[in-house]
Amino acid sequence: MTHSQLFENIRNKKSFLCVGLDSEKDKLPQSLMSSEDPVFEFNRRIIDATHNYVVAYKPNVAFYETDGAEGWMTLEKTVRYIKDNYPDIFVIADAKRGDIGNTSRMYAKAFLENMPFDAVTVVPYMGEDSVSPFLSVPGKWAIILAITSNKGSADFQYHNEDGIKLFERVLSVSRKWGSIDNIMYVVGATKPEMLTDVRKIVPDHFLLVPGVGAQGGSLEEVAKYGMNHSCGLLVNSSRAIIFADGTSDFDKIAGEKAREMQTEMQKYLAQKKLI
Amino acid sequence: MTHSQLFENIRNKKSFLCVGLDSEKDKLPQSLMSSEDPVFEFNRRIIDATHNYVVAYKPNVAFYETDGAEGWMTLEKTVRYIKDNYPDIFVIADAKRGDIGNTSRMYAKAFLENMPFDAVTVVPYMGEDSVSPFLSVPGKWAIILAITSNKGSADFQYHNEDGIKLFERVLSVSRKWGSIDNIMYVVGATKPEMLTDVRKIVPDHFLLVPGVGAQGGSLEEVAKYGMNHSCGLLVNSSRAIIFADGTSDFDKIAGEKAREMQTEMQKYLAQKKLI
Repeated sequence: MTHSQLFENIRNKKSFLCVGLDSEKDKLPQSLMSSEDPVFEFNRRIIDATHNYVVAYKPNVAFYETDGAEGWMTLEKTVRYIKDNYPDIFVIADAKRGDIGNTSRMYAKAFLENMPFDAVTVVPYMGEDSVSPFLSVPGKWAIILAITSNKGSADFQYHNEDGIKLFERVLSVSRKWGSIDNIMYVVGATKPEMLTDVRKIVPDHFLLVPGVGAQGGSLEEVAKYGMNHSCGLLVNSSRAIIFADGTSDFDKIAGEKAREMQTEMQKYLAQKKLI
Repeated sequence: MTHSQLFENIRNKKSFLCVGLDSEKDKLPQSLMSSEDPVFEFNRRIIDATHNYVVAYKPNVAFYETDGAEGWMTLEKTVRYIKDNYPDIFVIADAKRGDIGNTSRMYAKAFLENMPFDAVTVVPYMGEDSVSPFLSVPGKWAIILAITSNKGSADFQYHNEDGIKLFERVLSVSRKWGSIDNIMYVVGATKPEMLTDVRKIVPDHFLLVPGVGAQGGSLEEVAKYGMNHSCGLLVNSSRAIIFADGTSDFDKIAGEKAREMQTEMQKYLAQKKLI
């Protein structure tokens, strides 16, 4: 998918919502536990109930990997279900991978060739050759961590050389490795005004913003500081949507929560005259 | 396994060799391709042929993950084979994981609880809460990336705040998150004299040194600059051992290569009066 196709999908759906499929087995509604693959069944119903309001899904790979080979099969079934039924939706493997070149190539193959993910989140610590294998698969994306929304983000991401923080260096150096058609950045939303600093370095790139919803963070402020001429935002919500309700109506409630966020997003897109 | 148990194993084996199981399917000897699980069969024979000369094995998770659920079963069989037959050998999941706390907990569970790995390599970019879940499993280790041996390591790892490079900050900050009994560091060996700087910050920790063998780097220099009073080194070699020979005698040749490295290591341990 290209940058302009993604923007087109945002205009069509009037939404820049990404739903995180952090489908922790222990948190699933009891009613699903008798099915053959409860996590897949949960995902399938969440996807069917929310797809009209979202432009992206983001399975968190750790929550599948923790079940070993079985979890991998569930992950693969989930991404194939999305792509078979809703092919325009952008699907992100939230895997935080990155290793030396020949190893990153294996990870890129796993997610972007063997499975039909559109993008993988990657860690920049090891530099260019750890990221570039993800950029060499046509039509696929690397989503590079810049600022994360967790407490530990302060430990290293603000390490400051001559006024340039590490996350700023990550942005300015890595943007040259690819283009706005294959690089996106993770920018944690706990301090939305920092999006202004980010936009000075990467005015045109898409940003994947976690941390709206259960993790805190205001959608209005993210839109205010982060939105650009082609939206340039995917805002993620995981638990606040998928675990909004623990009964057998969980999918209906998830759909309502997703629609609420889509409605708010439509307002900000209209204010910016993008729809 | 504790720090002193690991040192005891090094003294017993007269070796600080770690063999990297980067068992890429395309590189396996043709003679294995008819077996049911060629990668496991390759690993099993490499392990049986080398175990007398090594204190650690390090499967590179990407090379298994690229085969999806099937690869995960091979990975799990491999670590169980090592632990069932050679329980004193330290087994590292070279996975380069790291995410927000609740997600890192899932990764820790996958490798350190569901599978019997002793350690996982982790990326420090997201800070303390991304690493600490790996440190809270009793007897298990996090091996934190400090300096890597690839070209891209120069992109960010040397980002310098008031004379302190990022990798030095990673060492000095993260050493407080655990102890020498559950934290080890990846220190790339392409410039062995840098081990002197590393040892100023972490004099007592074990260092996992990649890049000896096919990736270049001299074992003698690594021992000279990096060895401490309890050895404090695991030196990895992957392709130079496991792919030393492509015939059906691959395991015999791998055993010989491992024994050569062990013999050299024995010399440095004796020079340091550790055996």
